[in-house]
Amino acid sequence: MIKVGVVGGTGYTGVELLRLLVNHPDVELHVITSRAEAGRPVADLFPNLRGFTSLEFSMPDDAGLEQCELVFFATPNGIAMTMVPRLLEAGVRVIDLAADFRLGSAGDWEQWYGMPHACPEYLEQAVYGLTEVNREAVAAARLVANPGCYPTAVQLGMLPLLEAGVIDAGNIVADAKSGVSGAGRKAVTGTLLCEASENFKAYGVDGHRHLPEIRQGLERVTGQPVGLTFVPHLTPMIRGIHATLYARLTGKAADLQDIFEARYRDEAFVDVLPAGSHPETRSVRGANHCRIAVHRPQQADTVVVLSVIDNLVKGAAGQAIQNMNVMFAFPEQAGLTGAALLP
Amino acid sequence: MIKVGVVGGTGYTGVELLRLLVNHPDVELHVITSRAEAGRPVADLFPNLRGFTSLEFSMPDDAGLEQCELVFFATPNGIAMTMVPRLLEAGVRVIDLAADFRLGSAGDWEQWYGMPHACPEYLEQAVYGLTEVNREAVAAARLVANPGCYPTAVQLGMLPLLEAGVIDAGNIVADAKSGVSGAGRKAVTGTLLCEASENFKAYGVDGHRHLPEIRQGLERVTGQPVGLTFVPHLTPMIRGIHATLYARLTGKAADLQDIFEARYRDEAFVDVLPAGSHPETRSVRGANHCRIAVHRPQQADTVVVLSVIDNLVKGAAGQAIQNMNVMFAFPEQAGLTGAALLP
Amino acid sequence: MIKVGVVGGTGYTGVELLRLLVNHPDVELHVITSRAEAGRPVADLFPNLRGFTSLEFSMPDDAGLEQCELVFFATPNGIAMTMVPRLLEAGVRVIDLAADFRLGSAGDWEQWYGMPHACPEYLEQAVYGLTEVNREAVAAARLVANPGCYPTAVQLGMLPLLEAGVIDAGNIVADAKSGVSGAGRKAVTGTLLCEASENFKAYGVDGHRHLPEIRQGLERVTGQPVGLTFVPHLTPMIRGIHATLYARLTGKAADLQDIFEARYRDEAFVDVLPAGSHPETRSVRGANHCRIAVHRPQQADTVVVLSVIDNLVKGAAGQAIQNMNVMFAFPEQAGLTGAALLP
Amino acid sequence: MIKVGVVGGTGYTGVELLRLLVNHPDVELHVITSRAEAGRPVADLFPNLRGFTSLEFSMPDDAGLEQCELVFFATPNGIAMTMVPRLLEAGVRVIDLAADFRLGSAGDWEQWYGMPHACPEYLEQAVYGLTEVNREAVAAARLVANPGCYPTAVQLGMLPLLEAGVIDAGNIVADAKSGVSGAGRKAVTGTLLCEASENFKAYGVDGHRHLPEIRQGLERVTGQPVGLTFVPHLTPMIRGIHATLYARLTGKAADLQDIFEARYRDEAFVDVLPAGSHPETRSVRGANHCRIAVHRPQQADTVVVLSVIDNLVKGAAGQAIQNMNVMFAFPEQAGLTGAALLP
Repeated sequence: MIKVGVVGGTGYTGVELLRLLVNHPDVELHVITSRAEAGRPVADLFPNLRGFTSLEFSMPDDAGLEQCELVFFATPNGIAMTMVPRLLEAGVRVIDLAADFRLGSAGDWEQWYGMPHACPEYLEQAVYGLTEVNREAVAAARLVANPGCYPTAVQLGMLPLLEAGVIDAGNIVADAKSGVSGAGRKAVTGTLLCEASENFKAYGVDGHRHLPEIRQGLERVTGQPVGLTFVPHLTPMIRGIHATLYARLTGKAADLQDIFEARYRDEAFVDVLPAGSHPETRSVRGANHCRIAVHRPQQADTVVVLSVIDNLVKGAAGQAIQNMNVMFAFPEQAGLTGAALLP
Repeated sequence: MIKVGVVGGTGYTGVELLRLLVNHPDVELHVITSRAEAGRPVADLFPNLRGFTSLEFSMPDDAGLEQCELVFFATPNGIAMTMVPRLLEAGVRVIDLAADFRLGSAGDWEQWYGMPHACPEYLEQAVYGLTEVNREAVAAARLVANPGCYPTAVQLGMLPLLEAGVIDAGNIVADAKSGVSGAGRKAVTGTLLCEASENFKAYGVDGHRHLPEIRQGLERVTGQPVGLTFVPHLTPMIRGIHATLYARLTGKAADLQDIFEARYRDEAFVDVLPAGSHPETRSVRGANHCRIAVHRPQQADTVVVLSVIDNLVKGAAGQAIQNMNVMFAFPEQAGLTGAALLP
Repeated sequence: MIKVGVVGGTGYTGVELLRLLVNHPDVELHVITSRAEAGRPVADLFPNLRGFTSLEFSMPDDAGLEQCELVFFATPNGIAMTMVPRLLEAGVRVIDLAADFRLGSAGDWEQWYGMPHACPEYLEQAVYGLTEVNREAVAAARLVANPGCYPTAVQLGMLPLLEAGVIDAGNIVADAKSGVSGAGRKAVTGTLLCEASENFKAYGVDGHRHLPEIRQGLERVTGQPVGLTFVPHLTPMIRGIHATLYARLTGKAADLQDIFEARYRDEAFVDVLPAGSHPETRSVRGANHCRIAVHRPQQADTVVVLSVIDNLVKGAAGQAIQNMNVMFAFPEQAGLTGAALLP
Repeated sequence: MIKVGVVGGTGYTGVELLRLLVNHPDVELHVITSRAEAGRPVADLFPNLRGFTSLEFSMPDDAGLEQCELVFFATPNGIAMTMVPRLLEAGVRVIDLAADFRLGSAGDWEQWYGMPHACPEYLEQAVYGLTEVNREAVAAARLVANPGCYPTAVQLGMLPLLEAGVIDAGNIVADAKSGVSGAGRKAVTGTLLCEASENFKAYGVDGHRHLPEIRQGLERVTGQPVGLTFVPHLTPMIRGIHATLYARLTGKAADLQDIFEARYRDEAFVDVLPAGSHPETRSVRGANHCRIAVHRPQQADTVVVLSVIDNLVKGAAGQAIQNMNVMFAFPEQAGLTGAALLP
């Protein structure tokens, strides 16, 4: 049983983290902070938690974060980097669900996030928390950068092909569709029900912040530049990401189904569907699974990978808990045993 | 640990029962039957269950139902009554999630359900499984008639007022709104996404099968005829029932908030919200809770009660498991500890 | 052909007004104002209007509103009352789609809207624009107060019964459900897709601003106090209001279907459905119709009326255009001939 | 004014055709057939049409189709081909909204549609009704094959690039997302609200019937084989298609924005958005427009085209009316002047 703190628990990532933590067998939720809601019971803001926690939001300064063994940051980008160094120095381990520590290069980060990085010297020790890739490093990490939602779905779908060396890494297309919760709980016109329901659109075609994160992840496998076109779309539902991935097969004969099954055989949270399948986002709603299918239409040279996750679970809070489990040597599935809500 | 069987697990009530049972600490899921899907893995039909169960659907006749200590019926109306007598005689306890045993009068049943009852002699021993009303009888029951979804939301909202004797029982209005999953998984035009989304309508205004069930439940409290107008509506979402209940206060002075809080103080699954609240259906999505608020607008003579449940959980599968827990002396919350999925 | 101006065209009422006006045969859209969007092409904010208008938003002060024969206000409450007197004095006729002139009593208005009224002396000359009730007065009006969305659906549903004197006016329940566009285009958390979809809730049970408006309308018919309980709900869709109305029949024998058919026989926009019907909100999506059905369940003493409109059309912009047509002696259906979009 | 008949008007394409035809200035709707609904008023099945038409469905045999100058087929695939020859011989012109005459090769048709073609000798004279490509041939046609919904969105998005010769035709990806109405009004489990809402999935990855239709259209431009990967997806909304198209630029310098603007300058129904735009499906809901944007992310070699239509309008009924207008020398926009419904 460890003491855990959450900084910034008023967004969708925050409430999802709380939903999972209140039932985790090895965790005592010690403190949750929010400047805006300090003094308000958590269950007043999120009535699904009535009866599950009596915690109130507290000010970050008063929060006793340093008494925790682990602190999650579920804050907007740019907050964690101002608080993390002090916590690490106090011996607290940290999982940041925002983007502050995801890119290895401070220059890249500053270019894509449009602000100076407050502690670039910590970028190197931050472990990129795509558990299925970095499990050992996560286990030992003081600071974990929890991956973005799109990057999780895209990397889990592309890595087996790159590792096997069967595709042209210079020409990959990732056409990704996200539910609206990916845009957060902030009040903006574009995500009002009347704007975003009964509607479908692409956005950020000319450059989305998850592009360098995905490219970095793929290039760590290939060891050479990856040509990636990434187009995110907003789809009228609350939860779920569906990544449709296209790549050109190189000459090598390869059983694509085998490659995926072999890669994920021992992974509890990555499920390779039978050949010919089409995974549905609802099959992972509320669950920490990624479900993947691989196709080669008309036996031509283009491989199509379909990869689905719940953006708030495997794409955020669930993967953070999975990383926590690895860091503290809990069973990797602890607190993540629920089946998806269907329908 | 008990052996449990499910008859007819291919509908929404069935898959929800399975979702909850696969994680129940005291249950071994022994058999699940479906004539139409016999031989097919359950997780093939419901991919959210991949990794959670390796069961296949089997034919009801071969199913080894008699080896179970408890059998749930998640069948269309009219099936359970043909199979239940044999199981009861074999010593198996039964919870019927359909309507076959909900009405005490075979005549009423035949009038509202339009077919003869196959075993009217069992109606008397069937216990109506609104746990908060009949807990002791449920504990001892061989056969439990699990309440309908609307009846659960309406009765939990009206019973405190009737028990306290503060309203005119001759003039109650229940305006109820249900998500589309209440209509089941059968392929019919009316519940296609293109018919039921972006749309709101009433149905069955001249008489819905849940009317006699609700009236029976209320009259068991009042001991006299109840005048009830019940209007169900279809609302464009998957899960959730919101019952808005109207009644006329009689002369008695009464603190309505107190009445509700006192009635449900010891109930784990009924949550009386603070005065002035408006419960949301999403606050119970996937959870076994009923959340209730009581209002007296403009301090006039009409009391308004707002009562929300997830129709598939407290309105069906969750309440069935709650009843099972009571019947087998498991902790009443066993297998029902998840918080609602929000957002 | 008249010159028309629109003040405040950046909300949902505004864009709907524009959608209808750009195809109106007798209207030249002369000016549309918005302080926030001044200088921006209308079709840039609302891309459905690309190719239909080349107008830009202009500042209210520069707008040449006084050159118009008619000005619509599609502004938040409290704006029109500061500008209307000057326009009326300049000979411009006005239709206010906000609430500024809906209540006859300045005292009531100030109580419910929480601010002093800027020109109470104009309340008396304002004509309440429920066309089916006040057609002659609308024709002659300088200033029309366009009804609220809920009040339109509720009054059209209740007036025939009150006019016929067959119900107890002291005990009426209006349980109304609205799509989310009724809450406007303002960025607030509560109407985000992730908050309002897959969710159903009541709100304002203890007092909604449309209550005094509805009560005033009903009392103008009865000439005596009306006892009304009004409960609005938010339903997860964009457009549509469904009012479910309950009243107690008094002794008088009456053919309810006849009463409704007789009342609305000559009305182009009120459609009384055959006995036994359940109107759907989608049957009026984008159209100016109100469709109504009347029921008497189990032949008991409670009458149930179902009334549906599109809140943005008959509940706002469409009714405003209907009123304009009456004011300027255009055919009442001019510009309102489109059939509802279904599915 | 021409007499028009509709065969098979009970699906979504049919009701949309009726919605548009009842307000068309040059059309008299003479007959509408349906075996299943013969004798039933159209407005009873589709209540949005109450007050717009008093027609009843009639049997195809009794229908007086031969008295019409034009007959639309809004039937399932395989019906039109059995009736069209007789009508053509009787001098009736035909627009088939199904797929019977879309492919030039009977062999291809039989392979993809899984049945023998009843009148392959008519395939050659059928004009493929993508109006923006075949306007002159449509004007003279006796028999028009109205394009599929995906093929309309994809071809309008790709043709300018192929005509300009600036992309590699051997490696095109069309990632397309459709609202659920594309699947029709037939009662099947997969398109129930509870299956298709709050869900996103691909389908038909290994081969969809629109693939050969798209490929045929593109190859008619290139005059050589086109390498096309086409992946359709189901998105949780009623109407709308969003095609995201990817191709590799060849060496030629080219101003992509210019290419699109030049190609569609004179087209009333194709709207090229300003550079940097992201078209939304709702901007064409209920309207006959296709809106397109072209991007070249990071100035790399991949061009991304975004193309949106309403699948029931420009993707079906609206394009059919556009073709009718061309065939009968009506103004091309007649009956298609409505702006999209937003929100």
